[in-house]
Amino acid sequence: MLCGVYGRMSIIPKSFKNKNTASDYEYKTEYFVQQIDHFGFANLDTYKQRYLIADQYWNANGGPIFFYTGNEGDITWFCNNTGFMWDIAAEFKALLVFAEHRYYGESLPYGPDTFKSHTHLNYLTSEQALADFAVLIGQLKRSLPGAANSSVVAFGGSYGGMLSAWMRIKYPNVIVGALAASAPIWQFTGITPCEAFNQVLTNAFKQASQICVENVRNSWATITSIGGTTSGRKFLSSVFNLCKPMSHQSDVDDLKAWLTDAWTDLAMVNYPYPANFLENLPAWPVKAVCNKLSLPAEGEALVQYVADAANIYFNYTGDSTCLNTSQQATGNLGDLGWGYQSCTEMVMPMCADGESDMFEPKSWNFTDFSEQCYKQWKTRPQENWITTEYWGKQLQYASNIIFSNGLLDPWSSGGVLESPALTLIPIVIPDGAHHLDLRASNPLDTAAVVAARIQEKNLIKMWLGQL
Amino acid sequence: MLCGVYGRMSIIPKSFKNKNTASDYEYKTEYFVQQIDHFGFANLDTYKQRYLIADQYWNANGGPIFFYTGNEGDITWFCNNTGFMWDIAAEFKALLVFAEHRYYGESLPYGPDTFKSHTHLNYLTSEQALADFAVLIGQLKRSLPGAANSSVVAFGGSYGGMLSAWMRIKYPNVIVGALAASAPIWQFTGITPCEAFNQVLTNAFKQASQICVENVRNSWATITSIGGTTSGRKFLSSVFNLCKPMSHQSDVDDLKAWLTDAWTDLAMVNYPYPANFLENLPAWPVKAVCNKLSLPAEGEALVQYVADAANIYFNYTGDSTCLNTSQQATGNLGDLGWGYQSCTEMVMPMCADGESDMFEPKSWNFTDFSEQCYKQWKTRPQENWITTEYWGKQLQYASNIIFSNGLLDPWSSGGVLESPALTLIPIVIPDGAHHLDLRASNPLDTAAVVAARIQEKNLIKMWLGQL
Repeated sequence: MLCGVYGRMSIIPKSFKNKNTASDYEYKTEYFVQQIDHFGFANLDTYKQRYLIADQYWNANGGPIFFYTGNEGDITWFCNNTGFMWDIAAEFKALLVFAEHRYYGESLPYGPDTFKSHTHLNYLTSEQALADFAVLIGQLKRSLPGAANSSVVAFGGSYGGMLSAWMRIKYPNVIVGALAASAPIWQFTGITPCEAFNQVLTNAFKQASQICVENVRNSWATITSIGGTTSGRKFLSSVFNLCKPMSHQSDVDDLKAWLTDAWTDLAMVNYPYPANFLENLPAWPVKAVCNKLSLPAEGEALVQYVADAANIYFNYTGDSTCLNTSQQATGNLGDLGWGYQSCTEMVMPMCADGESDMFEPKSWNFTDFSEQCYKQWKTRPQENWITTEYWGKQLQYASNIIFSNGLLDPWSSGGVLESPALTLIPIVIPDGAHHLDLRASNPLDTAAVVAARIQEKNLIKMWLGQL
Repeated sequence: MLCGVYGRMSIIPKSFKNKNTASDYEYKTEYFVQQIDHFGFANLDTYKQRYLIADQYWNANGGPIFFYTGNEGDITWFCNNTGFMWDIAAEFKALLVFAEHRYYGESLPYGPDTFKSHTHLNYLTSEQALADFAVLIGQLKRSLPGAANSSVVAFGGSYGGMLSAWMRIKYPNVIVGALAASAPIWQFTGITPCEAFNQVLTNAFKQASQICVENVRNSWATITSIGGTTSGRKFLSSVFNLCKPMSHQSDVDDLKAWLTDAWTDLAMVNYPYPANFLENLPAWPVKAVCNKLSLPAEGEALVQYVADAANIYFNYTGDSTCLNTSQQATGNLGDLGWGYQSCTEMVMPMCADGESDMFEPKSWNFTDFSEQCYKQWKTRPQENWITTEYWGKQLQYASNIIFSNGLLDPWSSGGVLESPALTLIPIVIPDGAHHLDLRASNPLDTAAVVAARIQEKNLIKMWLGQL
C-alpha cells in the first residue's frame, strides 16, 4: 500500500514482469562501465551497465541510432516487447541499442547488496539514469566505427517514455528527438488531480459495460462484509480458489488489493489481440472480464462473478490449481527499485472517490505517504522536485518529442494529450492501451494504432532530415 | 599550480576577493534551508543558504525578480559589484535577490568542517548550485506576497554568468532569460584550444604596447637565469621589495607564478576608470603597467622594469612596505572551493606556447592534472562531463540568453561571441574587461559598454513582454 493508492509498485503491469521472455530478435549483450555518481565526486565506484545492441540493419555510414531508454525492469523484457523498433530498423538502416536502467535487471551497482543499504540506494534516481544514457551514447559514438555522426533517437514506453522525453528536455545535445509512449510525465502533484488515474481506468471498463463498473464498485463492500466472519472468509477462499485460505481480517484487505491490481493491470494490457506470447490473455481482456460481470448482482452471487472475472486474468489457461493473493505483494527486485523511486522522486499522487471511479474511496495524503516512506526506506520523498527538474507543464522550451497515449490506458491521465509547443506532437490512440504503439505490429491491430505508427515514422524521418 | 596552468584557482581576480567591501546599497540578509543533496536521498542533511534581498524598488504587483546566481565567493562582494542590477532596478520596478553559491561565503554546509572531509565536499557541484537556485526561486514565488506571477531574470558574471546561462538551459521553466556576462562556458576540452586564454590576455597587453609584451615574454628566462644564484636571488628580493627574501630555487618559481597571476588579473580588471572603490588601481591599468615596460630592455634593467610594473598592481598607493609572493598561494575558503570544482567538473585546460602568448611555454596534460587532483582531493576530474551536461556548442536548443564579453578580458576566449540561435544574443564590448557591463555606470565608461547596457535592458524588456 506504499506507493500509489493500491499498492502499485511499478508502472509495468505485474503480469508482464514475472514471465520469462523468449525472443526471435537477435542482439548482442554488452556492458559499459559507468560512474556510480554523475553528480558528486566523493564516491568513485563504478558499475557495469548492461545494454543490448543489434547492428544487422545498420548502415554504419550515417545510419541513425535508435536508443531505448530502459525503465524499471530487466532490459531484455523491454527489448522483446518493443517490436516497433525492430519492425522499422531495416527501413531506417538503424542501429538498435537497448540500455538497461541502473538498479534493474543485471545492472545492479552493488550486486546482491544493492538493495540492502541506504547508501547503496543513493544513486537510484532518474537524473543518474539519464546521465548514464548520455554518457553511454557519447561512448558509443566515439567507439563504434561510423557512429560519430549518427543521429540518435530515443524510444521509451511508460517510465521509459518519461525518461525519453526528459532526455530530450535535459540533453537535446545528445538526441535529436524522442518517442515517449504512454509516458505519464504530468502524473505529479499540482498538475494532475489524484482522482484522474482511476477515472480513466474506470472509463475503460465502462466502455465494455456500465454494469461491470457498478458490479466492481459494489464488490468492495460486499467482500468486506462477507469477509467479516470466519464462515465468510471460508466462502471467499473457496470462491477465489485461494492456495492459502484466509484466516485474518487483514487477508480480506490483501484480497481487495490483489483484485485492484488485477483490474488496473487489465486496463493497461487491454490489447486488441490475444497476447499469448507473453501473458496468457484473450484479445480485449477488459471486455472478456466484464462479460463475467455484465449482469446485475449482489451478495455471494456478485462475489462469484468477480471471482470468475479475476480468473480470466490470473488463470486464463486453467493451468494454476489455486491462486495466491500474496504473490503480488512480495515483489521482485524491480518492485523494490520502483518502491524506492516512488518514495523519493516519483511521487505520483493517486486517490479514489468511489463515485467517479469504481474503487473504494481513498484519499491522498502526502504527510502520511512521507511517513510510510521514512519507515521503509529511511528517506523522504520530495513532492515538487520532478516538476522543477523536468519543467512540469512549461514544455514550450522543448522540441522534437512525440507523446503517444492510448485512451484506454489509465496512465494516459498523466500524459501529454495536447501540444504544448510546435514540435511536441501528441498522438492519441482512442482504442489503445499501455504503449500499444511500441509493440510489434499485429494483424489484429486497430486502424488507430497503425496510423499512429505511420505518423511516428514520418516524424522520426523529419528529425533525421529524411522528409 | 594545480588548476589551470598558472595556479589560477578562481575566475575572480584575486585582488578583488581579499578586500573588504563597503556599500551604499541597502538590502536585507536572509537564509533559506536547502537540502544538501538534490540528486540523492541517502543524506537528508540541510544547510542554510544565504541570500540578500532588496525590495525597495519592487512593484509587488507584477514586477519582475532579478536574481543573481552567485559564484565562487562571498555574495556580498557580488552584490556590491553588480551595480548594473541596482542601476536598473527602479526602472524595472524589480525585486533584487543575490543568492550565495553553496560552499562559499557564509553558505558553508558543514561549517568550519566543510573543507575538511571528502564526503562533506561531495555536494559542491554546479548542478547542486543550480538546483539550489531553482528551489529558492520556487520558494520565494510561493512565499512573497505578489511574487507568484513575477517573471525571474537571472544575472551573473564570470562563473556566476556560466550558472546564469546554464540555469536558462536546464531550468527555462524557472527563469525567463539570463544575462551571462563574461561567462566562459566554452572554456572546456574539445571546444576551445588550451592556448586561447593566454593569447587573448597577451593581445590585451599588445594593445597597450608591443614592446611591453616582448619584455614580459623575455622576463621569464631572465628571472630564471638571475634567480639561479644566491646573489641573483638577493637582487630579485631587493628589486621586488619582498617581505621574505628568496632563499631557494623554488622561490623563483613562486615569483614567476605571482607575476603571472598579476598580469592575468590586470587584464581582467582593465577598466576605463580608477577602481579606487574596491581595489587601488589607475584607469586602464594594463596601459599603466605597460608604460613601465615600454622600452626594450634585458638583464637586470628588464627585471627592474618588471618590478616597477608589478608595483602598480600590488602597491599602487605605496601603502605596502614590502610585497609577499606567497600571499596568493595561501588562498581563502573561496580558493579552496574553486580548487575542488576545478578538480572535479570545471576542467578548463590552459596552456602557453611562449610565441603566440607572452608566457613561458607550458603544456596541458589531463592525466597529470588528474593525478595532481587525486593527490589533493582524493577524487578525479571528469574531463567531458560539463560539455555533455550543458550541451557544449549545441546551444541551438536554448533561448533568451545574453552572452556579453569584453574583448580585453582573457576569459572571452571561452565566451560565446557569435550567436548559436535566434534568441541567444552575443554582445561584444571591444574595449571591455571582465564583466564590465555588470558594474555600476561610471562617467568614464566607454561608449561600447554604455551601448551594451542599453541593449541588455531592451532585451530584458522583451523577455518581460515590455517591448
